[in-house]
Amino acid sequence: QFKFLFFSVVSYRGSAVAKIIGNNVKNLQKFASTVKMWVFEETVNGRKLTDIINNDHENVKYLPGHKLPENVVRFWVDPHSGQLPLASSIRQFPDFLASFQGIDEGPEGLKLISDIIREKMGIDISVLMGANIASEVAAEKFCETTIGSKVIQNGLLFKELLQTPNFRITVVDDADTVELCGALKNIVAVGAGFCDGLRCGDNTKAAVIRLGLMEMIAFARIFCKGQVSTATFLESCGVADLITTCYGGRNRRVAEAFARTGKTIEELEKEMLNGQKLQGPQTSAEVYRILKQKELVHKFPLFTAVYQICYEGRPVTEMLSCLQSHPEHI
Amino acid sequence: QFKFLFFSVVSYRGSAVAKIIGNNVKNLQKFASTVKMWVFEETVNGRKLTDIINNDHENVKYLPGHKLPENVVRFWVDPHSGQLPLASSIRQFPDFLASFQGIDEGPEGLKLISDIIREKMGIDISVLMGANIASEVAAEKFCETTIGSKVIQNGLLFKELLQTPNFRITVVDDADTVELCGALKNIVAVGAGFCDGLRCGDNTKAAVIRLGLMEMIAFARIFCKGQVSTATFLESCGVADLITTCYGGRNRRVAEAFARTGKTIEELEKEMLNGQKLQGPQTSAEVYRILKQKELVHKFPLFTAVYQICYEGRPVTEMLSCLQSHPEHI
Repeated sequence: QFKFLFFSVVSYRGSAVAKIIGNNVKNLQKFASTVKMWVFEETVNGRKLTDIINNDHENVKYLPGHKLPENVVRFWVDPHSGQLPLASSIRQFPDFLASFQGIDEGPEGLKLISDIIREKMGIDISVLMGANIASEVAAEKFCETTIGSKVIQNGLLFKELLQTPNFRITVVDDADTVELCGALKNIVAVGAGFCDGLRCGDNTKAAVIRLGLMEMIAFARIFCKGQVSTATFLESCGVADLITTCYGGRNRRVAEAFARTGKTIEELEKEMLNGQKLQGPQTSAEVYRILKQKELVHKFPLFTAVYQICYEGRPVTEMLSCLQSHPEHI
Repeated sequence: QFKFLFFSVVSYRGSAVAKIIGNNVKNLQKFASTVKMWVFEETVNGRKLTDIINNDHENVKYLPGHKLPENVVRFWVDPHSGQLPLASSIRQFPDFLASFQGIDEGPEGLKLISDIIREKMGIDISVLMGANIASEVAAEKFCETTIGSKVIQNGLLFKELLQTPNFRITVVDDADTVELCGALKNIVAVGAGFCDGLRCGDNTKAAVIRLGLMEMIAFARIFCKGQVSTATFLESCGVADLITTCYGGRNRRVAEAFARTGKTIEELEKEMLNGQKLQGPQTSAEVYRILKQKELVHKFPLFTAVYQICYEGRPVTEMLSCLQSHPEHI
């Protein structure tokens, strides 16, 4: 029997996917029957979220109204991405399935979270990304997702574990690209939200999404150690997730309010997100520092404009001048 | 001085682009100063549309409220795509710029409209496609577009003629792919509209758009004589135009009503489009006949489902079963 561990930074999606795995393993002899998840700990109504989930089988904070199978068990993880509790007890697991949306800026520049775990634990890790709004996944509405696996057999195992008629999976081998997509799409969604706030229209928004996608590809080409295939950007983790994030999603929504109200990102995080941090602006800051260090800022005007508008007081209307002079059109 | 002719099946977009060219040529010595357009003739309030445009300089039917430059002159064209008036007087023009959204099913199978013109006139023709909703182009809101040119110098000439700070152009050499994108996207938009009508949610819609894009690429690979580059689908004519068409646009809108009301496409064309024909269903029928003839129906379940739902009474809910069993996931 294969043992596996499921790790999620995003509790919404993690819970929805755990529900699928929990049900699937009941009919799959080759996998351990308990689904172990590794998530950030939080306190809800005076109780630990892991206790609530393990006893009441419902993620009351992130996925209320959906009972999780009883074989889904949760582990605690420190909410600081730099301080994952890589306890030796966890090393017994042969494979990982992760659902990340972050990159880390270490002393040597860009670091994927999966790389940090790979290095510290010495085991293979697969990543899961796609147009997968959690409530719709949990409601078993049709969607697609992408698994990125450097060890393709592990990716195929996870596909077996996860696929259902309404959750369709493609496995690709450039896992780094898949993981980067999940982080970078949020920057583009902020740009799309600015355009919505400025009432630029559908043509401009489509251009922001497309130029954003081109910068995602260019960024992946520069920073990924492995090879970067354009085809990966045509998977659910690429264009499909980007579309969903730029039309729905909180990054777009807060960015629209930013452009309309003139309030700061911090003020809007307090008002609209209960103080939670918005991923797009944070990722744009990480990416900007990396681009500056490598003297590549001029090749990424969209990523750069998002950062400078969010944090350096650049007027939001300059989102448009960055598009007009984009290197794609010179 | 270069002479050129501008041809448009879609009068909305054609007028918007003519406005740009009319203004641009005033400052470009190397081009003839009169912009000659070739469009379908119609009668509006008892007057010929070409007469109205040539005298009043406004396309009162398709682009009201936007004055066209006086150097834009219109030619008549028969509204039947098979009967283009390829008069010898037109052969004096060295280049063409076309904006098509159709394919033709001739005795030998698929035929691009540009190919018909190329053969009959023996001159080079470029095609223009992109996320270019006409009212926004005319209002000079930022957008991108793609020119496909088999003779790349001609494409670059047209870029010079057309580009402005808010109308940014990329030139690619697989013109057939660019032209096919403009036709096939409308089939995908019908599928997206069905999903909206069925209230499938954002994940499913993103999957329809992505799987539709994959079928567009596969169809282009099978039917284009020249080489097909995946990169072309990442241009404005590909992913960007597809997004705009699947979120806005009349194909999506009518298809949504089709799924909600149970009325036929013909009834909805009468009610919602004043009897005008919707492009998506028509193109799906042309594509279906071609796929059937080549025994490739099973590889294009999305295109096929759109056709069968529109014309053969297949239940609209089966849009979902075509996604579940898509060859992308086997």
